[in-house]
Amino acid sequence: MNNFTFLNPVRVHFGKGQVEKLAEELKDYNKILLTYGGGSIKKNGVYDDVMKALDGKEVFELSGITPNPKTDKVYEGIKICKENNIDFILAVGGGSTLDCSKAIAMGSKTDEDFWDYFFEQKNKPESALPLGTVITMAGTGSEMDDSCVISNVERKKKYGYGNKLLYPVFSIIDPEYTYSLPQYQLISGSCDMFSHIMEEYFSEPDYKNTTDNISEALMKTVIENIRIALKNPKDYQARSNLMWTSTLAINGLTACGKASDWLSHSLEHTLSAYFDVAHGMGLAVVHPNYLKFVYKNHLEKFKRFAVNVWNIDPEGKSDEELSLAGIEALQDFFKEIGAPTTLRELNIPQEKIREMAEHTRVYPTTYSNLSVDDIETIYNNAY
Amino acid sequence: MNNFTFLNPVRVHFGKGQVEKLAEELKDYNKILLTYGGGSIKKNGVYDDVMKALDGKEVFELSGITPNPKTDKVYEGIKICKENNIDFILAVGGGSTLDCSKAIAMGSKTDEDFWDYFFEQKNKPESALPLGTVITMAGTGSEMDDSCVISNVERKKKYGYGNKLLYPVFSIIDPEYTYSLPQYQLISGSCDMFSHIMEEYFSEPDYKNTTDNISEALMKTVIENIRIALKNPKDYQARSNLMWTSTLAINGLTACGKASDWLSHSLEHTLSAYFDVAHGMGLAVVHPNYLKFVYKNHLEKFKRFAVNVWNIDPEGKSDEELSLAGIEALQDFFKEIGAPTTLRELNIPQEKIREMAEHTRVYPTTYSNLSVDDIETIYNNAY
Repeated sequence: MNNFTFLNPVRVHFGKGQVEKLAEELKDYNKILLTYGGGSIKKNGVYDDVMKALDGKEVFELSGITPNPKTDKVYEGIKICKENNIDFILAVGGGSTLDCSKAIAMGSKTDEDFWDYFFEQKNKPESALPLGTVITMAGTGSEMDDSCVISNVERKKKYGYGNKLLYPVFSIIDPEYTYSLPQYQLISGSCDMFSHIMEEYFSEPDYKNTTDNISEALMKTVIENIRIALKNPKDYQARSNLMWTSTLAINGLTACGKASDWLSHSLEHTLSAYFDVAHGMGLAVVHPNYLKFVYKNHLEKFKRFAVNVWNIDPEGKSDEELSLAGIEALQDFFKEIGAPTTLRELNIPQEKIREMAEHTRVYPTTYSNLSVDDIETIYNNAY
Repeated sequence: MNNFTFLNPVRVHFGKGQVEKLAEELKDYNKILLTYGGGSIKKNGVYDDVMKALDGKEVFELSGITPNPKTDKVYEGIKICKENNIDFILAVGGGSTLDCSKAIAMGSKTDEDFWDYFFEQKNKPESALPLGTVITMAGTGSEMDDSCVISNVERKKKYGYGNKLLYPVFSIIDPEYTYSLPQYQLISGSCDMFSHIMEEYFSEPDYKNTTDNISEALMKTVIENIRIALKNPKDYQARSNLMWTSTLAINGLTACGKASDWLSHSLEHTLSAYFDVAHGMGLAVVHPNYLKFVYKNHLEKFKRFAVNVWNIDPEGKSDEELSLAGIEALQDFFKEIGAPTTLRELNIPQEKIREMAEHTRVYPTTYSNLSVDDIETIYNNAY
């Protein structure tokens, strides 16, 4: 394996009723910014659970955070934090709420414009407001990672940013909180976590290693449990397996000793920046098409993927055929669980493809060195 | 999965040449207690690497720490720390050196007798000296866990003790440092890590879950890579896979959502306390025999073990036959890599079995509730 340094400082409280840990976790904080999305937490009881734990504290609220969180909500949150000397941010919801809150946490501690200073110029925050999370969706993994993704609508950009100051202090992960999610989000989240695992798995080194073995175990866990959860959304075991897998998929474990390419995410971010596509659904479209573009130089890894993850019989297949069969099994799986597999299904007009390709943030990886033309080809293949 | 809280605060530096991170890690400390074992680190260059990083600091040494570290070395280390106001302990070696150093770290901060106060009475340390490690052996996992095991020769007891104050601040894990290990220790360490994984895997819940899937991936990683490392001790990939697996096997990952029975370790500790048996070799003997004693009440899990870990064809086998075939494959594997599988091979006299059984620390687990007679039976079956 490649050399690496690993430390993940997030304290995870996983399981039924773990929201009861909130009071203890927040005992040293008094002015709390509570952030959440469209209000579903008010319908499913999560908001009430949280407010009970916040009893006696001064609570400010920022609601209405949308999927693909936008700069406007970040500015709004920063303003509240600065005007009220907020000392802790509690993010309650899915990945979008958490990511938006992370951007607020670092933007609140500087006089610079958060987008220009961090996302464009890549400066490092010197401090950030402490943040805790109550995650209500499996997929993003934002509850145990140090990064956030924000969309700038005016500039048609969706950029990620990572810094260790953005690790949550704690995360409450209660699988029962996902029971009331729309099926669409269950599917999208499952595609997202699957893609996170593949971003690391399909990066060098390719020789057999502990990390890739774990990644295969996690991919198989997703395949098995999304099928169960789709049939029975209140299957606690399936929900808890998906939720813990999504957390591990991006907390650094699957990156240990790996190069971490992450190029499919870059290809997807353009879709979301242009057309507000649900992140996981965009990944279901672009990730297999990216893999089809690059697999020929990494046949050993793709053969392994086909056999170990998809149980495809290698008998009588050439290396290329076997590799391709694995990627097609992946695409079939996304289709089976109800995800789109073409840009057409996402209602993206084909005439926008060249412009999107030119707008995509690209860099050399261990598996690819894409030109704008290559990206255009991948998008066209995905149409 | 069961509810759990997870946080592992150890900063791991993994890979070739990572000893260069020592200087930065130790920059705030001046009076260092350097602990190590029999002196092999002076022959293989590790001692020189470490001393270079310690240049300019006041270094005290405690050497001669043996396998199954004994109370005498702990007392010796505590004395050095107290007399010299040591501010950091750097443990360089295998699990025994690390465990001994952890006991010193907590014993140095109290006026109580460390054995009586912590190991017998189970008091919690209120503070401990900070500790860093340079691990030179794969197996123990002590580099990323919060526990230590110490032997009290006079009382014929080998007890484990865990507390979050005992997590190392950092650990340097360089697979090349294991190249010069005697083959005996490579084998013993591999049995040890395999046993650590099974202690969690064979505990409830038994239904399919993310953690058990990871555990299976780790067990398969051990099986594949110990075979390679035995043939070619300088195979970096195999060594790094074994080393990272051993770290993950006991850093909490394989315990997430599991009951954590750990009874085979209790059965082994008696062997070591009586006859100074190498820990991993003792586990190779007792763990399969413990499993043979308890498997009938957990057939689903044992069937899964046989098929997923050992690729045994279930066709034509009853549940019991398949389960037993898995345990026998485990025993055959231990034999294949050169580990003992009977107490006789460990030169333990059969007439001591009853006394050892009476001396074993036992408690109800999710898989068993052993009486002294049961333990005697397990030891006799292992003879």
